[in-house]
Amino acid sequence: MQIKDKHPADIAEHLVALDDKERDLSFLMLAEKKAEVFSYFENHVKQEIIKDFGDKDMAELINAMSPDDRTDMFDNFPDELIKRMVNLLNNEERNIALNLIGYQKDSIARLMTPYYIQARPDWTVEKVMDQIRKHGKKAETLNFIYIVDAQNRLIDDLRVGQILLAERKTEISTLMDEKFIAIRANTNIEDAFNTFDKYDRSALPIVTDNDSLVGIVTFDDILDKMKDRDTEDIQKFGGVEGLELSYIDTPWTEMVRKRAGWLIVLFIGEMLTASAMGYFDGEIEKAVVLALFVPLVVSSGGNSGSQAASLIIRAMALRELRLKDWWYVMRKEFFSGFLLGSILGVIGFVRILIWQQTGIYDYGEFWLSIALAVSISLIFIVLWGTLSGSLIPFALRRFGLDPATASAPFVATLVDVTGIIIYFSVAAFFLSGKLL
Amino acid sequence: MQIKDKHPADIAEHLVALDDKERDLSFLMLAEKKAEVFSYFENHVKQEIIKDFGDKDMAELINAMSPDDRTDMFDNFPDELIKRMVNLLNNEERNIALNLIGYQKDSIARLMTPYYIQARPDWTVEKVMDQIRKHGKKAETLNFIYIVDAQNRLIDDLRVGQILLAERKTEISTLMDEKFIAIRANTNIEDAFNTFDKYDRSALPIVTDNDSLVGIVTFDDILDKMKDRDTEDIQKFGGVEGLELSYIDTPWTEMVRKRAGWLIVLFIGEMLTASAMGYFDGEIEKAVVLALFVPLVVSSGGNSGSQAASLIIRAMALRELRLKDWWYVMRKEFFSGFLLGSILGVIGFVRILIWQQTGIYDYGEFWLSIALAVSISLIFIVLWGTLSGSLIPFALRRFGLDPATASAPFVATLVDVTGIIIYFSVAAFFLSGKLL
Repeated sequence: MQIKDKHPADIAEHLVALDDKERDLSFLMLAEKKAEVFSYFENHVKQEIIKDFGDKDMAELINAMSPDDRTDMFDNFPDELIKRMVNLLNNEERNIALNLIGYQKDSIARLMTPYYIQARPDWTVEKVMDQIRKHGKKAETLNFIYIVDAQNRLIDDLRVGQILLAERKTEISTLMDEKFIAIRANTNIEDAFNTFDKYDRSALPIVTDNDSLVGIVTFDDILDKMKDRDTEDIQKFGGVEGLELSYIDTPWTEMVRKRAGWLIVLFIGEMLTASAMGYFDGEIEKAVVLALFVPLVVSSGGNSGSQAASLIIRAMALRELRLKDWWYVMRKEFFSGFLLGSILGVIGFVRILIWQQTGIYDYGEFWLSIALAVSISLIFIVLWGTLSGSLIPFALRRFGLDPATASAPFVATLVDVTGIIIYFSVAAFFLSGKLL
Repeated sequence: MQIKDKHPADIAEHLVALDDKERDLSFLMLAEKKAEVFSYFENHVKQEIIKDFGDKDMAELINAMSPDDRTDMFDNFPDELIKRMVNLLNNEERNIALNLIGYQKDSIARLMTPYYIQARPDWTVEKVMDQIRKHGKKAETLNFIYIVDAQNRLIDDLRVGQILLAERKTEISTLMDEKFIAIRANTNIEDAFNTFDKYDRSALPIVTDNDSLVGIVTFDDILDKMKDRDTEDIQKFGGVEGLELSYIDTPWTEMVRKRAGWLIVLFIGEMLTASAMGYFDGEIEKAVVLALFVPLVVSSGGNSGSQAASLIIRAMALRELRLKDWWYVMRKEFFSGFLLGSILGVIGFVRILIWQQTGIYDYGEFWLSIALAVSISLIFIVLWGTLSGSLIPFALRRFGLDPATASAPFVATLVDVTGIIIYFSVAAFFLSGKLL
């Protein structure tokens, strides 16, 4: 990559690398680029920089910010700071800001910008060109011109190429085909993302339920949200509460806090394994050999559960699977789980057979029953792990929780406890009257 | 979302829902939209549709496709089919296609399109407008006009608004500021993605090592690649080989194949736990109570390892962490791991204390030594899990493998085996001469 002169994003990157005092001073000395550079900082840097700002500096900064960047900033700022900032906005910007804040937090309208070119069907190409000249510099995209009727309802979008191609006296209505794509203001961000993705557009108009055009959303803003979503999904799946900052910017104490919660919950859940094992301590005493296979048998259930959960969670995030698909998934996973369990069952059986026959380890007189107990319980446990891993994400969504909470450690812990019960029950069936 | 009339993406969606025969027939009946609709199909659908195409239909289709969609299709098609298709291209399209295929598979150049507007510094605004009128319809973006010198080297980019704003007789050179952002053709897609993300652009120009402008890449194409990357990362982290199709489109037999590989590898690795436990069977026989805590102690290591791995893998994917940062991570994780282990150690100790004192379970005369053995080994095992989980992704990258291969099950399995050894060794220290 190659950069001639300094782009605001580079200036921001450069400032962040300085120590805090130098950073704040250098920022104040930026002239007209201030607002643009500011929007490239992470939220905690933004808050640090403005914490000692007087009203004049603050007003200058936030009035110059673009409305979508400003809303995004408000989403992460303490209420008091937001209140102070809103009061410092001039009338026009305040109206824009309050309007955007009025939409639900995860709605696409939050990411809107009011800077785009719109035109009427009865305008001439000449007049549209005038509009572009007047507002083109501030507009976030020029690929499309949006056509609205007298009630400000969106009725078409025209590629700017069509406008440039036409004669200056041509009336816009003659260019229209009334085909266009728009997103409703209350659509949630993930669904809106899928619309962007499906139609390969870099900007889309946002309309109210009455089809009124209220703004446009550009792809870069929605992308940031999606990147955050995927980061959170991966971290949650690993059993960590989503970090707010990057790995490097998160202090290690915060890191411990974000991890300790789940780790403790899982640990307490996993304590049930000690209770379950304790319930079978008589069996273990009579047949120590049974205890040897506990981690092997039980972890296979956890592994197959992790696999299923990762597939389902991602398919849900991409909206390939919906709540109503749970029964379809259940059937598909039943066959997969059974087959996978059988494969491991056979391998487990062969392992014990070889160790016994070659004398690597002597499992005693009832080694065949032990081998059968291990391999049959593997089938049940892997099947159980697969079904749990695929159904828990559905259950979580059903209760309004994030499916990604069904982390690999969560599924593994759940399967560990039940796995021990399954294993010793199957063992009891094969070994009662022999070892037990 | 609201759609007036049919967009090619909707037509594609509609066709895929039909049965295969109907789908193929309906596709053939699409008139000029054929190539556009085709590009919205998934790869397996593309192959099915064209498998019975004659040369004439095939030639018509692929000559009409946009070059970036075509390269993407070639990436996933069998060699023979590609050869046949390339031969059916007309001269101009064949040159474009061969040029694109010539770049490395994961380089940004593969996603280029040659359709953009370029201009020379000595042109007038009028002449540029003529170019836009001539080529604007085919161009993938009109937000920027790219300025090249006599050797076709990129020297600036101008917003189309600047052009429209200027007098018709103005020379382009007077509008130039020589600030622009470009990406080198051999940059890999992930790095290029970060450039798009950093500068919030929806299209960027691609230059050779000599700064020659060779094409532009639009954001929608790079986004598809990134979505695939995140899907693969999440699936890999769950211990599944990345699926090629969506969950719903993947037959269950294929699903089993993608999961069985890792599950078997992990199972065989986990067999070492049986061996490790077998090594300590004498101790278990003397103190069955020790066996009760094996799943609890060992799984805590796996859980903390999953947490660390998910944080590191994501930070590496976002390029927040690089190979050289391993020592920084090691130090940070050492403190985190130690503290997390200590927290669990205390909880574990209290658990045994309460059970013993209230008589829920009698751990015998040496219950205090057992409690100490459990809690001290928890510290070591959680520390070990944390360090393994965070270092394995670095080790994998060091050897040219994908860090996401360090799946939660993989880390858990590794930590299980070592965890058993740590646990029984610590127990031997506290209990030798007593129970052992």
